[in-house]
Formats: sequence, structure tokens, C-alpha cells
Amino acid sequence: MKPLILISNDDGIDALGVHSLIDYTLQALSNECKIVAVCPDGARSGQSAAITHNAPLRLYRRPSYKGAEMWAVSGTPVDCVKLAMHTIFKEKRPDLMLSGINHGSNAATCVSYSGTMGCVLEACMLGLPAIGFSLTDYRPDADFSPAREVVDKVVKGVLAGGLPAGICLNVNIPDNCSPEGIKVTRAAKGHWTDEYREYKDPSGQPFYWLTGHFVNAELDAADTDEYWLARKYATVVPTSPDLSSPANNLEIESLLN
Amino acid sequence: MKPLILISNDDGIDALGVHSLIDYTLQALSNECKIVAVCPDGARSGQSAAITHNAPLRLYRRPSYKGAEMWAVSGTPVDCVKLAMHTIFKEKRPDLMLSGINHGSNAATCVSYSGTMGCVLEACMLGLPAIGFSLTDYRPDADFSPAREVVDKVVKGVLAGGLPAGICLNVNIPDNCSPEGIKVTRAAKGHWTDEYREYKDPSGQPFYWLTGHFVNAELDAADTDEYWLARKYATVVPTSPDLSSPANNLEIESLLN
Repeated sequence: MKPLILISNDDGIDALGVHSLIDYTLQALSNECKIVAVCPDGARSGQSAAITHNAPLRLYRRPSYKGAEMWAVSGTPVDCVKLAMHTIFKEKRPDLMLSGINHGSNAATCVSYSGTMGCVLEACMLGLPAIGFSLTDYRPDADFSPAREVVDKVVKGVLAGGLPAGICLNVNIPDNCSPEGIKVTRAAKGHWTDEYREYKDPSGQPFYWLTGHFVNAELDAADTDEYWLARKYATVVPTSPDLSSPANNLEIESLLN
Repeated sequence: MKPLILISNDDGIDALGVHSLIDYTLQALSNECKIVAVCPDGARSGQSAAITHNAPLRLYRRPSYKGAEMWAVSGTPVDCVKLAMHTIFKEKRPDLMLSGINHGSNAATCVSYSGTMGCVLEACMLGLPAIGFSLTDYRPDADFSPAREVVDKVVKGVLAGGLPAGICLNVNIPDNCSPEGIKVTRAAKGHWTDEYREYKDPSGQPFYWLTGHFVNAELDAADTDEYWLARKYATVVPTSPDLSSPANNLEIESLLN
């Protein structure tokens, strides 16, 4: 039985990244799969797990790409997964959900803001094996070929072995190289800084535009994604949509008494 | 030294919930604090940890409320925290960040979509002790009084004792009652279902509007937030912005080899 695969992203249905992910998935599985891509109708980077609840959504069929069904949604990445499951996959659930390939890194804390990973977390909560792929090059015409072998290995591995319950994967791929290998690791801790450029409008009033850079608080930690990406390895981070930290319950109880 | 407190939310600067949170915080601390509220300029529910990177942001001063500075931001809840830290708190960081009180529950998986918790996670990544408060009544004119004692206890406890590094709190309060107590617990696992109402536009084309209900997969689990909220307890869930699950690394490594 050919696996049925849902692909989404946050860069939109016209992004090179989603076409590359379809290409590499078809190659990995020797065309023995059915792919349905359901993506935003435009760029939705930085949308995290946002949902559209105060406006209607539209779902539009687009021309197929190499046999893959292509659909556009007038919403967020999570909307794409929810609406796809409600309509296209109502009768038969996908065997696998893939997201990306994102134009830009989703390593370290970037995962918090990531639409690419937002829809992966949603698919995971819905019980699907789900994987997000991101390339560390944000340009619209990025060369996605470093991802080819990584997609091959990860997609085949997950289709064959499944994923632990409640766990999805966040895969990052270094750009402009042939990756040295794949490291299973964790997200580096850190934060963003110098986050706004300041302007004055023609009437002299200030406005702000997001920019900044990531400060890695664990530069030398050899068990983190940033460490291995810097050394030209692809990284795979097992990721959970459950943010609870019950290991801290006793300490918090003592605070409140 | 009076503590300096940043308050944000996702329901916007005009919401009753943020005014109630200011009221109850001032009462808890006998007015011995300085509050600065920086909130979206309108409703931003369901915005998760979304950021605005492709448009400028404006920051507007509003009239003060009971001595609290009030500011509106033309962006998401996370934008509010980032921009507040870049501007208002550039010289002196807040001692505490609070969010809410949200109009509606953020228990269980709702935390994934929650703007209330999105900005709490952001504050946590920036190293601030941070707490999100939500009431299980989504109505604009909800009665927030069940939150009064909970805010008192949690704010005093955290100001006195701090929070573990990398941990913030997700506090939910049952509506229309005097809470039986406070339980420190974890998020119930589950998912949303029946998520769209379907319509036809005047030309006969379909459109969709998000709705649905939460299916609790752990109805009888007495260590979950949904369990205790149903029994009229307020719940406190220690929450981490780090989604990595390194306990699964070995299993994932074996998949890829």
C-alpha cells in the first residue's frame, strides 16, 4: 500500500522549499507514495502555532506538481493541517506529515516562532508521525540540495519505524555544503537580542521593525543543534507539543504554601 | 524596592481581563509595585508565539489605569514583550511578567495556540519570571473575581521565591465559583475535533469557520489540569519553552541507522 503523505509549510504553496520537499520525498520513495500538499496561499513565516478563529478560511485547488495534489489555504500553517484533516483527509488519514523545507533555520529557540514547526506540532497532537525540515538559508532561491539525502534517510526511517507517541521531529540542514552526517540532539538554549530597528515616520513618530540576532547561551554544548549545524551536520531534535514540566511540580507547590 | 511588573495579554489593552489582573496585582501587593501594561491594540487570541517580521510595529501610550502605565502595540502578544523590553524596559528589566487574565481556558493543548501563553514563553526565554492567568469563561464581560485569590497567592509566591530557570507558569481558574484551592499539575493530553463549520458563499463556493471541541484523552487522570478545573480548583502548570525531548534521542538514532 502506497503511503499517503500530507505536506505543509509556512512559506506558502509557491515556495521553492515545498517543491524541493516533494521532489526529495518522491525520490526517497521511488514515486511509491501519494502526496497531498496543503500550504498557506502566501508567506506565513513566524506564525508559530497560530490559528484563525475570527475569520473564514478558503481552500483552493492548484495545479498538480509531479503527481502531488496542491492546495492553498487562506490561513496559517496550523489552519492548513486542521482544514486538510477536516476535508481532504476526512475518510483516510495520512500515514505521514511533512513540513517545509523551510527557507531558514528553525534550530534552538526559533522553533517557538516557527510556522514550519507549528503545523508539525499540530499534526503530532492529532496522532500523525510528523517531521519538519528547515534549511539554514532564508533566501527564496536557496539551494535545497543539501537536504536531499537527509530527507531520504529521515522519511524512510520514520515510515519504516514510526515515531514514539507524542513525539515529532525538528530537522535542520546546513546550507551550501554536503552535510557531514545527521546528529540526533536537543535545541540549544538562548535568546534573541537587538531586536528592533527604529525609524521615524514623516510626522516624526517612531516605528519599529523586527531584526536582531540569536545569542547561543550554550556555545560549547556538544549535545545541541546549533553546535552541530555550525559543524555542517544536519540535526534531528525529538520534539514534544506538551510544554508541561511536572518535574518542577514539587518546587512550585512549595512556593505557593 | 517596589517590584517592576510587565503585564501583557492577547485580548488587547481594552480587555476587562487585563484591567482585572492589574486590580488584583495591586491588591496583592498593597499598591507597592510599579505596573506597566503593554498589550496588543486589539484582540489577538489564538496567535500562539507568532511574531511580526514583515511589517512595522507602532507603540502607543494610552491613559494610565490606577497608576499603571498602559501601552498598545500594533502586533502580536510576543511582539508586545519583545518591543516592551527593547523600549520601555531598556534600562531596567522587570522583576516579573504577568499575562492575562485571558478570557477563556488555556488548559490542556490550548496552550499551543494561546497568545496569553505565547508571550509568557517569550518572557521566560528572556529570563523573566513569568506567569499566564486564564479564566474558563471567554465572554468579554466575564466575572473575573474567582481569580482574585489565585493571583494573590501565585504573584506573592513567585515574587518571594522566584521560579526555576527556564520554567514559567500556566495558571487556569474555574469561572463562576469560589475556587476550592490550587493544584500544581500538568496539561491534560488530547486534541480538538469537529473543527469547522462549513458554509457556501453566494456563488456556491465553500468556506470554513473554526469551531469544534476538545477531546480529553485522559479524562480520569488526577494529575491533569482539566481534571482539577472540572472539580473547581485553579490549576498551576509548570511550563517550559524548550520542546526538545532528549529522552527519545536513542530511539530516534536507531530509526536513522
